Amino acid sequence: MLSDEYYIRRTFSLAKKAEGGTSPNPLVGAVIVKRGRIISEGFHRRVGLAHAEAVAISKAKRGDLEGSTLFINLEPCFHWGRTPPCVDKIISSGIKRVVISVKDPNPLVSGKSIKKLREAGLEVKVGLLRKEAERLNEVFFKNMREKRPFVVVKFAQTLDGKIADREGNSFWITSYKARSFSKRLRGIYDAVLVGINTVLKDNPYLDSPSKKITKIILDPNLRISSCFNLFKRGSRVFIFVKKKTKIKKKFPPHTFIERLTYKEREGFDLDELLKRLYSFGICSLFIEGGSYTIGSFFAKALVDKVYIFVAPKIALDKEALSSVSSDRALSVENFLKIKDLKIERVGRDFLFSGYPKF
Amino acid sequence: MLSDEYYIRRTFSLAKKAEGGTSPNPLVGAVIVKRGRIISEGFHRRVGLAHAEAVAISKAKRGDLEGSTLFINLEPCFHWGRTPPCVDKIISSGIKRVVISVKDPNPLVSGKSIKKLREAGLEVKVGLLRKEAERLNEVFFKNMREKRPFVVVKFAQTLDGKIADREGNSFWITSYKARSFSKRLRGIYDAVLVGINTVLKDNPYLDSPSKKITKIILDPNLRISSCFNLFKRGSRVFIFVKKKTKIKKKFPPHTFIERLTYKEREGFDLDELLKRLYSFGICSLFIEGGSYTIGSFFAKALVDKVYIFVAPKIALDKEALSSVSSDRALSVENFLKIKDLKIERVGRDFLFSGYPKF
Repeated sequence: MLSDEYYIRRTFSLAKKAEGGTSPNPLVGAVIVKRGRIISEGFHRRVGLAHAEAVAISKAKRGDLEGSTLFINLEPCFHWGRTPPCVDKIISSGIKRVVISVKDPNPLVSGKSIKKLREAGLEVKVGLLRKEAERLNEVFFKNMREKRPFVVVKFAQTLDGKIADREGNSFWITSYKARSFSKRLRGIYDAVLVGINTVLKDNPYLDSPSKKITKIILDPNLRISSCFNLFKRGSRVFIFVKKKTKIKKKFPPHTFIERLTYKEREGFDLDELLKRLYSFGICSLFIEGGSYTIGSFFAKALVDKVYIFVAPKIALDKEALSSVSSDRALSVENFLKIKDLKIERVGRDFLFSGYPKF
Repeated sequence: MLSDEYYIRRTFSLAKKAEGGTSPNPLVGAVIVKRGRIISEGFHRRVGLAHAEAVAISKAKRGDLEGSTLFINLEPCFHWGRTPPCVDKIISSGIKRVVISVKDPNPLVSGKSIKKLREAGLEVKVGLLRKEAERLNEVFFKNMREKRPFVVVKFAQTLDGKIADREGNSFWITSYKARSFSKRLRGIYDAVLVGINTVLKDNPYLDSPSKKITKIILDPNLRISSCFNLFKRGSRVFIFVKKKTKIKKKFPPHTFIERLTYKEREGFDLDELLKRLYSFGICSLFIEGGSYTIGSFFAKALVDKVYIFVAPKIALDKEALSSVSSDRALSVENFLKIKDLKIERVGRDFLFSGYPKF
């Protein structure tokens, strides 16, 4: 007999199949087990489509469900949303036991489905691999708890922390493999953000192979023009400018110029920016540079996750550009700590990932 | 039956037992095998003591050696040095087959013992795991081939490549575990080197738990004085100063003031420095900072190996000190590549190690 933990891990794997595709919904996988055998599985593929537990239940034969156990990484939904509430479907299915990794983070519904399942006589176990389940849906949990997008910062640097030479050139610090990996990573999130200097210097496409990603440019004085590569593939583009900027330039369709509070020394009001983006339905933000833009999000403690690609190189030059650049004076004991730092090899480069602890 | 490779790897493990203790001699391990069974083993422990193959032969019973195979990571010695030549000892021992990982790098003797063994009728196999064997004795190989010390650079930095805050404070970027590991690493090498600014700022001891290490300070204007911690434990200290510096200060015994060519813009003549150190019997040099000193060795392409401790932290501050700082302008395509980069965890920190490819 395999353990409950085994099946919960299986729900994680199923859930991840839809990574980058379910926003604003969470990633959910469901496994139905009877007498030590998986009789049905499902995952939530995309917003508007059936929930994971509904998929798994519908795929099983009615008689088989009788007395079975449902494993699921997130508490089933309680409300009528785009689909009927799953909690009722589970109760009427014949399932006798439900193992849930983590409660719904939405304070309005958290725990309600669990209570209803128990009142209906089902055995319910909650909290198995809770931390992993929260990490799996870190975007969704951030959204529900703080009503703002999950903010990811990514940069590629040398071993000595430089993202470009003294002329600002960064082509190509990391290898082709790392750059492809980075593009796929971009596709997990709803939007990519860069500062105007990165656009002017590198003229990036900011596309992802997996989906049309929203592009966000911080450009206080509207220096961008429609000839840049990022406008080429028809994605939605938001350009944030200072409040009183005159807008005379023409841009392709799906380009939106947004005015935002900007102070000469502090830059844009980033709290307001995130609120605005969340109201546009952007649940997660992938920030790719440059070092000043990255530094400003860090300085405001608005970074939830970091990805740092490290190339096996040393820049040597003291005038080369550092990866993170803020004006904030921090003493060595107050350097920002990164929790749960992991490292993996990507081709000849390395990738660190972790969570800032402000 | 275990493979030849297995026994050669065993010689590496034996050799490493004396790591840091054999200078100027190489690390050597020897294994004698008969009918698939190890009948004797040895390693070279310290200069003046018996060589690895001599130890292994003397530990075996005379009759047992008849028809056996000797495994050794380095070609046996040919000349009378501090001990009699091992090649003759092997020939008269009854050993029938010798497996050698790598030839002696000294051009005067390289291959001579192998030739003599073959002429005496022994079967000799050479070159198994040669690259690993050279790496094991990278210090010795550098010494023999270039007649200068093997130069190692070590620094401890944040993820974004900073070794200190804007005030120059670096206590403590990495954890206690990483710092202990670093001190043990120091003890593998013959001497530690820092610039005078590191002495003035951090007042380090520069000791190692495993041995009395020679300390080398680059101090053009003799700003150091005898009150600093590095003089406390009675190690040998070399202080390099500009040629015309007046020396009026008093220092403890075993302190040597050395005059060396110094140019205002270029600093000390580092090629000359290394030659001088090698003539003092220093076969390997462990450079620990600061960023300018490290940068100057890199700029002259005089670094053979790097150790970079990375703490799970981000400094953020653009005024914080970068780990490597040279005045050399390098474009992104010319950033210094690091070969064979490895990474390991040390406590909560990470340690990169690799070989610059100039």
